[in-house]
Amino acid sequence: MPTATGYAAQHSFSRLKPISFERDDPKANEVEIEVLFCGICHSDIHQVKNEWGNTVYPCMPGHEVVGRVSRAGASVTRHKIGDLVGVGCMIDSCRHCEPCSSHEENYCEGPNSWLATYNGPMVPKAKSPDGKNSYGRDNTYGGYSSSVVVAEDFVLKIPAGLSPDVAAPILCAGVTTYSPMKHWGVKSGDKVGIVGFGGLGDMAAKLARAMGADVTLFTSTKEKVSEATKIGVTGVLSSDKDAMKKLAGSFDFILSTVPEKHDVMPFVELLKRDKTLVVVGALEPLAPVNNQEVAFHRKSVAGSLIGNIADTQEVLDFCAEHKIGPDVQVIPIQEVNHAYKEVLKGDVRFRYVIDLASLKLDE
Amino acid sequence: MPTATGYAAQHSFSRLKPISFERDDPKANEVEIEVLFCGICHSDIHQVKNEWGNTVYPCMPGHEVVGRVSRAGASVTRHKIGDLVGVGCMIDSCRHCEPCSSHEENYCEGPNSWLATYNGPMVPKAKSPDGKNSYGRDNTYGGYSSSVVVAEDFVLKIPAGLSPDVAAPILCAGVTTYSPMKHWGVKSGDKVGIVGFGGLGDMAAKLARAMGADVTLFTSTKEKVSEATKIGVTGVLSSDKDAMKKLAGSFDFILSTVPEKHDVMPFVELLKRDKTLVVVGALEPLAPVNNQEVAFHRKSVAGSLIGNIADTQEVLDFCAEHKIGPDVQVIPIQEVNHAYKEVLKGDVRFRYVIDLASLKLDE
Repeated sequence: MPTATGYAAQHSFSRLKPISFERDDPKANEVEIEVLFCGICHSDIHQVKNEWGNTVYPCMPGHEVVGRVSRAGASVTRHKIGDLVGVGCMIDSCRHCEPCSSHEENYCEGPNSWLATYNGPMVPKAKSPDGKNSYGRDNTYGGYSSSVVVAEDFVLKIPAGLSPDVAAPILCAGVTTYSPMKHWGVKSGDKVGIVGFGGLGDMAAKLARAMGADVTLFTSTKEKVSEATKIGVTGVLSSDKDAMKKLAGSFDFILSTVPEKHDVMPFVELLKRDKTLVVVGALEPLAPVNNQEVAFHRKSVAGSLIGNIADTQEVLDFCAEHKIGPDVQVIPIQEVNHAYKEVLKGDVRFRYVIDLASLKLDE
Repeated sequence: MPTATGYAAQHSFSRLKPISFERDDPKANEVEIEVLFCGICHSDIHQVKNEWGNTVYPCMPGHEVVGRVSRAGASVTRHKIGDLVGVGCMIDSCRHCEPCSSHEENYCEGPNSWLATYNGPMVPKAKSPDGKNSYGRDNTYGGYSSSVVVAEDFVLKIPAGLSPDVAAPILCAGVTTYSPMKHWGVKSGDKVGIVGFGGLGDMAAKLARAMGADVTLFTSTKEKVSEATKIGVTGVLSSDKDAMKKLAGSFDFILSTVPEKHDVMPFVELLKRDKTLVVVGALEPLAPVNNQEVAFHRKSVAGSLIGNIADTQEVLDFCAEHKIGPDVQVIPIQEVNHAYKEVLKGDVRFRYVIDLASLKLDE
């Protein structure tokens, strides 16, 4: 009898539908987690539609997972049954390479890189140097499901004061924006720009503000400009050339959360000398970088991919301490396909979070 | 009677021809320098042809100038008549902005930015915020001439042990490549890649090697691969996909000296995690940066523009100490138009240096 249920796509063109499947029993170092909530990330949609050309089907997304430990392997010490815990984008890594040894598991350079919470290893068998998959699983099923089984080192503690639905998106959107701000040294008093006002932009702006930065949110959607003030930051319409010109050369750090190909140059122009624009939204070719603007002020354009496990715990604790979190809209899983459409329209400012209790409605 | 002679272009399409002109007498803080040698930089050709759309005619290039002090203003203390000195890309800056206060004159943010050795202020009157030119001169004439007049703070000392013709290209090609290697912390044992094997690439490779780095030179010209060994570094043909693949993820720093639009991605792939590729050659839009490669290893693409005055003195002294310098071919100024053609062909590995004594041949 199948031990788990969840929603998956069978092809790039198909909707997510309920399926039943076997979850492995937890190994000695693993815990089984009964999923309570799972956030919908824009990358779930990219992956379901095979827009990166690497999707393994059936594709069951979900890497913003919050739940309760329901079983624990014999050697597990960090979590116990009943604990409220979270799982982000990774459920394992090679644990031997230089990045893993430096606790930068998200940059794992093992033959299969890290094991993603869904869709299997980041470097699949066919593309790995030795033609093998050291994780033994070519596909993994994410948190749009009744349960997940994860190595305890990759399971985060949800701090008191964060409600489980709000905590979910922090596991991806939160750490994806927190990690580069920490790495590039955003500090109190800095002028920080956030490009894009979706799930990532919302988290980024709140985190930067809680760090004490003077935050400006750039959006291409007129209606969202005034919404920025609701989260205590300045909103600027990125197509407003006069407003943009006035801000030239004034930012200490800019984070672009735009989830598709875009021109970073209008924002590079806003950086001070020696400062960096980091792209976390779009994992694809950007419009050409104009080196005249970059070189004349020794600026940098960089990328950053999610964050490590320690940073993930840190951002959860930081959000609890500063009483911030994403704006979420909790939906039953039966509305997931509709939610995808709304996200693709680009006018969703909150994060959809699936209440997995709704899985029972399909029974 | 005109006090100086030199070679200048009257239009974007015209050849350089001899002209006579008035050099100002040195002010209290300025020195007059009798020019002995002046290097030909690829950017001289861009400027003469108005490829950046900002050329002021007549255009008399030359910003790799070595000569002897022939007159000194009343308050000059740093140089005396007869001193062997050099002038690079800048002859003045605003001296008040944040970069100038931090001794980063090459990133001057004054209303007219820095005053270039030729072609006038980097931000001309028409483009300055106040519509003025604080330097009082809309055009400046460079070192393809019998003399230059320069504020003493922008005049470098040519150290003993550097011959004046060899010293000339260090004033631009040298500091342009030294400054980013210093800024991004290139150190002994680092694996450094240099893209392009022209005047900048040659200097960059020699400097990196003298810093103790393990240097690889990437060239698109098959004939230049073996020439790399002559300067003690490894040569790789950038179109050799197998060779490039083997080098993936192995470099600590890469400097691109390619003087025109190019795709930086094949070289970004060679960087280790958290490392930077700096473009100094092309001051224009590059081919699109693929953020998937950049983000997956938290890499950066940055630009850098020449170097400050202190770094220029430092690289001159460094070259003298390590007994390195550009390969130069000294030519009479009458061959300047021919030299431009050869540089544009792209197969010149050395630096052309004009012997200004040849100006007398036109009399």
